[in-house]
Amino acid sequence: MVLRLNKTDIDFDAAFKQLLSMKREQDEDVNLAVGDIIKDVRARGDAALCDYTKRFDRSDMKPEMLRVSADEIENAEADCQSETLQALDVASKRIADFHARQKPQDERFTDAQGVELGHRWTAVSAAGIYVPGGLASYPSSVLMNAIPAKVAGVERLVMVVPMPDGKVNPLVLAAAKRAGVDEIYKVGGAQAVAALAYGTEVIQPVDVIVGPGNAYVAAAKKQVFGHVGIDMVAGPSEILVVADAENDPAWIAADLLSQAEHDSVAQSILMTDDAGFAEAVCDEVERQLTDLPRQEIARQSWENFGAVILVPDLTQDGPSLIDRLAPEHLELAVKDPEALSNNIRNAGAIFLGRYTPEAIGDYIAGPNHVLPTARASRYASGLSVLNFMKRSSLVSCSADSLREIGMDAIRLAESEGLSAHAHSVAIRLNKS
Amino acid sequence: MVLRLNKTDIDFDAAFKQLLSMKREQDEDVNLAVGDIIKDVRARGDAALCDYTKRFDRSDMKPEMLRVSADEIENAEADCQSETLQALDVASKRIADFHARQKPQDERFTDAQGVELGHRWTAVSAAGIYVPGGLASYPSSVLMNAIPAKVAGVERLVMVVPMPDGKVNPLVLAAAKRAGVDEIYKVGGAQAVAALAYGTEVIQPVDVIVGPGNAYVAAAKKQVFGHVGIDMVAGPSEILVVADAENDPAWIAADLLSQAEHDSVAQSILMTDDAGFAEAVCDEVERQLTDLPRQEIARQSWENFGAVILVPDLTQDGPSLIDRLAPEHLELAVKDPEALSNNIRNAGAIFLGRYTPEAIGDYIAGPNHVLPTARASRYASGLSVLNFMKRSSLVSCSADSLREIGMDAIRLAESEGLSAHAHSVAIRLNKS
Repeated sequence: MVLRLNKTDIDFDAAFKQLLSMKREQDEDVNLAVGDIIKDVRARGDAALCDYTKRFDRSDMKPEMLRVSADEIENAEADCQSETLQALDVASKRIADFHARQKPQDERFTDAQGVELGHRWTAVSAAGIYVPGGLASYPSSVLMNAIPAKVAGVERLVMVVPMPDGKVNPLVLAAAKRAGVDEIYKVGGAQAVAALAYGTEVIQPVDVIVGPGNAYVAAAKKQVFGHVGIDMVAGPSEILVVADAENDPAWIAADLLSQAEHDSVAQSILMTDDAGFAEAVCDEVERQLTDLPRQEIARQSWENFGAVILVPDLTQDGPSLIDRLAPEHLELAVKDPEALSNNIRNAGAIFLGRYTPEAIGDYIAGPNHVLPTARASRYASGLSVLNFMKRSSLVSCSADSLREIGMDAIRLAESEGLSAHAHSVAIRLNKS
Repeated sequence: MVLRLNKTDIDFDAAFKQLLSMKREQDEDVNLAVGDIIKDVRARGDAALCDYTKRFDRSDMKPEMLRVSADEIENAEADCQSETLQALDVASKRIADFHARQKPQDERFTDAQGVELGHRWTAVSAAGIYVPGGLASYPSSVLMNAIPAKVAGVERLVMVVPMPDGKVNPLVLAAAKRAGVDEIYKVGGAQAVAALAYGTEVIQPVDVIVGPGNAYVAAAKKQVFGHVGIDMVAGPSEILVVADAENDPAWIAADLLSQAEHDSVAQSILMTDDAGFAEAVCDEVERQLTDLPRQEIARQSWENFGAVILVPDLTQDGPSLIDRLAPEHLELAVKDPEALSNNIRNAGAIFLGRYTPEAIGDYIAGPNHVLPTARASRYASGLSVLNFMKRSSLVSCSADSLREIGMDAIRLAESEGLSAHAHSVAIRLNKS
């Protein structure tokens, strides 16, 4: 039976805190193993890559076979259904159109003292995207990670994807082609992250690495962070559906299950103001579960990590509880979703109204589906064009404008005991 | 003698690569010690904080004394020179004015299919800034870390600063007051980072932690990353001065030394197209060094990590070498700095022209002085208002617009084997 919380219960605060601190990820300590793999790839390059690929993916390759050829991509595309390819095209265009609006503006102005100031945004030269192999090898994820990089203007976009037993989902290669990926390599795991960060003979290094992966990939990204940029360390997916009694319980149940089917440690939470509606949704979840191909995964997620939170009033009680949950995905299936949304601070993506199931955002709406999990929407944003760009600030003084602001810089430098700092200003004011 | 490279030398490429991979930071492995401290603070809260503060800062305090009182701040301010306080006021205003222009715009639009899309930026609720104690306790750093948070709209801004033997630079407290810091605590080290991330009885947790610190602080920030946001893990400071022979060698020498005096592992590099000018600058460095209070630090930095790079033509040879160096600070003391700047991609901050010494940016120009070091400007930006804000994406479909885009979402979901995803869309199209 799914966990139920009622805000009017005396022990609600304790139960809610427990929900917040519920641990869904296992603490696999893979740091040492990952550190060794990274060292080995840095030392032995492609030879190490090939060794690990043989060991973990049962695929015996020479370095010159690591790169996916144009023929392999063409053949993969030929294996895909044309209507799925068309859907990928529609999704690609919508994602590109949305992300194009994220491109930041340069800034340049002269202030009252005559100092010219500003900043300029540029794309990183090269970016790498990690795509998981096997079951979780999703073409939608390729689009969501690759398109923002290309919109940013990244010149060299490199994808790595493990191909266990030499196999890959052909839609993943088709999606990579559509997204403008420039190079694809058949490697995965910590070894692939190490290759992207430090380079090998065959794989030139990149500046930023993004994309989801298992515990080894996550640990590797964390370890190479600082040498390259990374997006975030993503945890299991989650949804909070806020729904009043005017919804069809079957619709809301479907939304909860769409999250639960991802992963046995995914989390689906319903918040409602109507006890009867809550029970109707729970009944519907049970009913729909029986028809679901991924029933086992979804049931584990729902029974172990799902929750129903009953509150007296969604408008009054919702916002503060929602901000504390800081969900990755927030659905507002209420009469005035806009008004409720304006009072909420922490959510990776907000789906407004009864006709906006979260799944529409996973594929086609346009905004990115790579979003902060595990309450990280308190401080983090979804993947965007900004992950592939950086800002240089610009300062230009003339002799006159330096004179306007120079003395205060000298005073502050001297107060900090940094006399060479002071001198470098003073010498230009003819005061040295 | 400082390292000299000449692009026309046959071994230039090898020497340049060596310069790029020069290791300036010691690999202090403090991860285990830091992990223990974090665990202890999580377990014992303020009692642990007080124990570590007694041990590391020789300051014996009860938990209720950890917070700096309003009286202590007033008294500190009274100890400061009024012209330094005035300079802090000028700097605060200029920094706030510049950062106000960084506030990102919300976005909302309806696309051709009738889907409402957009995103909304909000400030994090609470942020913490780390300020080092002792010698490197700089009021300018307080302003640069705190003001962007307040401009972003952070409601609760918390500062931690170790006070060895109970002492603190009074200007640091005065700067905190000017920058709008809401709470200040007398703790430092990994224990302070742990308290900000997880909270204790006295210190409520924050969502983002920024600010420089020693190896323990850096390791602690990296370990709590994911539970809270962090800015970056900063390394020793560096400058690349690109200067033609029309400059006064004394000015350029002063700029190189202003970086070198920071730290014995700071790095100052001169790039020029004139061998005679290069030698004149080196002579000036020697001459100015003898007058410098921090002569010993600056000399170590210059002799161990400084470099002079001679190139045939700054316009032709400069940009690609500069991008490979990806400097934190870049000075362009050339005839047409604007034109050269437009060909450069990687630099944290660019100082244009002969009258813009880097030190003006450290204190008063307005842009942030917290910038990516160790070639991180390839992928990272300086500290900004964005470090204290996050973006929620917004999607709103009507029955009609869901019908427009729904079928493609269903196709993609089915191609990924995620049938509950497909169902959550289909059920709203009356197709289930």
